This record gives sequence, C-alpha cells and structure tokens, in this order.
Amino acid sequence: MSDDSFFAVVARQRACRRFADAPVDDATVARVLEAATYAPSAENRQPWEFVVVRDGEVRAQLGALALAAWDGGGRAWSEARLSSGLLADVDEGMRGGVASAPVIVVVCADLERTLRATVGSSLFPCTQNLLLAATALGLGAALTTIAVGFGAEIRALLALPDHVEPVAIVTIGWPAKPLGPPRRDPFAAHTHRERFGNGW
Amino acid sequence: MSDDSFFAVVARQRACRRFADAPVDDATVARVLEAATYAPSAENRQPWEFVVVRDGEVRAQLGALALAAWDGGGRAWSEARLSSGLLADVDEGMRGGVASAPVIVVVCADLERTLRATVGSSLFPCTQNLLLAATALGLGAALTTIAVGFGAEIRALLALPDHVEPVAIVTIGWPAKPLGPPRRDPFAAHTHRERFGNGW
Repeated sequence: MSDDSFFAVVARQRACRRFADAPVDDATVARVLEAATYAPSAENRQPWEFVVVRDGEVRAQLGALALAAWDGGGRAWSEARLSSGLLADVDEGMRGGVASAPVIVVVCADLERTLRATVGSSLFPCTQNLLLAATALGLGAALTTIAVGFGAEIRALLALPDHVEPVAIVTIGWPAKPLGPPRRDPFAAHTHRERFGNGW
Repeated sequence: MSDDSFFAVVARQRACRRFADAPVDDATVARVLEAATYAPSAENRQPWEFVVVRDGEVRAQLGALALAAWDGGGRAWSEARLSSGLLADVDEGMRGGVASAPVIVVVCADLERTLRATVGSSLFPCTQNLLLAATALGLGAALTTIAVGFGAEIRALLALPDHVEPVAIVTIGWPAKPLGPPRRDPFAAHTHRERFGNGW
C-alpha cells in the first residue's frame, strides 16, 4: 500500500497516458468524484457536472476528437517545445491512450451556476481534486483539454444541454506501467518576495 | 494533530476569511509552494509565478482592491444568490479579512509559458494544490479572483512584467476560529452515466 499522506500523494501525481485492461468499479469512481466536489468554487455554486463514460464506442470517439485536435495543430505547436520523451509520451497517449482508459470523466461547467469569467477558477480546482484522489487510490489519470475545442461534437456525443459546456476530459484507469516521479522546476525558481524579480 | 491522510485533508478544506495575528514562517510557505508545483500544466510548462507578499502596506492595498471589486458590483451580483450566512462570511472577508492574512500569495501566469486558452487549466490545479497543502498543515487559506480585474493596479504594486498576469489571490494564515466542514451537494446530484441526464 502506498503512503496515503497528503504530501506523498501530491508528490507522486503524474499524467498517466496508457492504461491496463482492467475495470474500475463504481465505488472507486464515486470516491474520486466525491473528493472532487470538496473543491472551492466561486460563490460555492459548485457548477460542475460530471459525465462518466464507460461505453467503448463513446470513449473511442472522444479519443478520436483528441487525436484530431493533436494532429490538426496541437502536435505541430508542441513539437518544437516539448522534450522528445514527453512528445513521445503524449503521442502514445493520443494514439489510443485516451480510448484505452476504462473510464473517461468529462468535466463540464453549468453556465447557469457560474459566470464565464469564473469557469477556470471554479472547475479546475475540482478537476485537480479528482486527479489527486485517483492518485491516492493508485489509479492513473490524466487531464486533457485539447478536445474541448470540439464542443459541438462532444455536446452531441454526451447529450449536453446548451448551458453545459465541456471543460476537461479526464482519463482514469489502472496504470499500464509504473509512473515515475513528476519532473518540476524547484518552486524557488518561480517565487518572488514582495515584488516580481526579488528572489526567494 | 489532524489526520493528514489525503482524503481527510480534502474533506476539511474550507475557505478561511479571518486570520489570527500570528506569523507564518518561510519554511511553511515553502512547503505549500512546493506542493503547488506538483500540479499538472499544459505541456508541463509550469507557467506559474508566485509573488509572496508579507508587507502590511501591500497587503492592505490588495485588500482594498478586493473590497473595491466587491463593493463596485460583486456584492450586488452575489447578494440575491448567496445564503445570508455565506454573504456575511464573504463580507467579513472583504472588510479587512484579506489584509488580515499574514501572507498573500499572488498566483500569476507567465504568458510566455502558456497559451491564454490554457491559463485556467494550467494555473488552477496548482492553486488548488497550494490551498490543500495549506489545509494539510493546519493553515487557513482562501482563493479569490475578484481583484484580478484590477490587473494594472496589481501589476504596478508587484512590479509584474507585461507577460506576467495575476490569476488568483490566495490569503494564508492561521485561522482566527475553527473552520466547519464544507457544505456541498452530493456528487451524485451532478453526475451522469454515459450521457447527460442519466442519473448515477
């Protein structure tokens, strides 16, 4: 059993882009979604709506949208700036990895419960709780937003009403292989004392 | 000592809007910011910049900007929709609570390391880690974005360069009084199976 203390879970969160062929049961999904709802949101309006997709055909279509966005410009944009290792990792994720997740949670914003200006601050804390909760349970997960540009297609696929908008697509499953530690700059490289430019 | 297991920390996160007159040392701030950096970001570009404000005058000015935004429209907008308890709580926070925090972290986006379209998905997971880490250590914290509309004023106050934009203002300190549990709808009220409208 992995260390489930808060800081240990935070430090081992890593994007998982290839999943084992093993199911994730409803109780586990419920635990992850419940954790997501403890996040803050503007006015505590809790404007999240979660669509939990298990259907293989729909997962394949969501994967195809992500791949279309990636091949249609995302990859060209990222190519010059990603390390070859990370590029290969994302490539692998896009070419089958999304659909290989047994569960895809499409995190949506209900625009009747949030202003457009607070979609980001009200939906991504919740999404981060979701990702961390998955990590705490030993699941792999990844946050992607690349396909949300295909809003109309996702809306049709998931029967979203007009006031509900997809914000993030989170793939969840048991990791196909162990995940390494995240690679990050030291916090002090991006921390300023009192005013920008003063070192920490 | 509170339970520091991941799910216990997540379940007790609550916005803290009034702080004790007690300092938060650098080592504690560092631990919180380090946790923030483990969050995911688009292309792992880590586009966060943190300005840690302890100066009382600057904290007062940030508090004044938040209050100006609240009194200048935010409160009128929220009044009809918040419970009287939550409205009173936010009112108290705005009228002195922001400046009462011994540490204010202004979370900024470096637009040279993120597209504008990925500011939300790259900055708020990090901000949520920051809030959760504060909770794990027994600190109180609150996420506010209301003052970021005053981008020019904050830019001048913190000497932010043009490509760095304030995204969130996080107040941190020891809570003035114990925080109750968060109030949330059950996740199932906002969860749909396969397609929107199918109950969980």
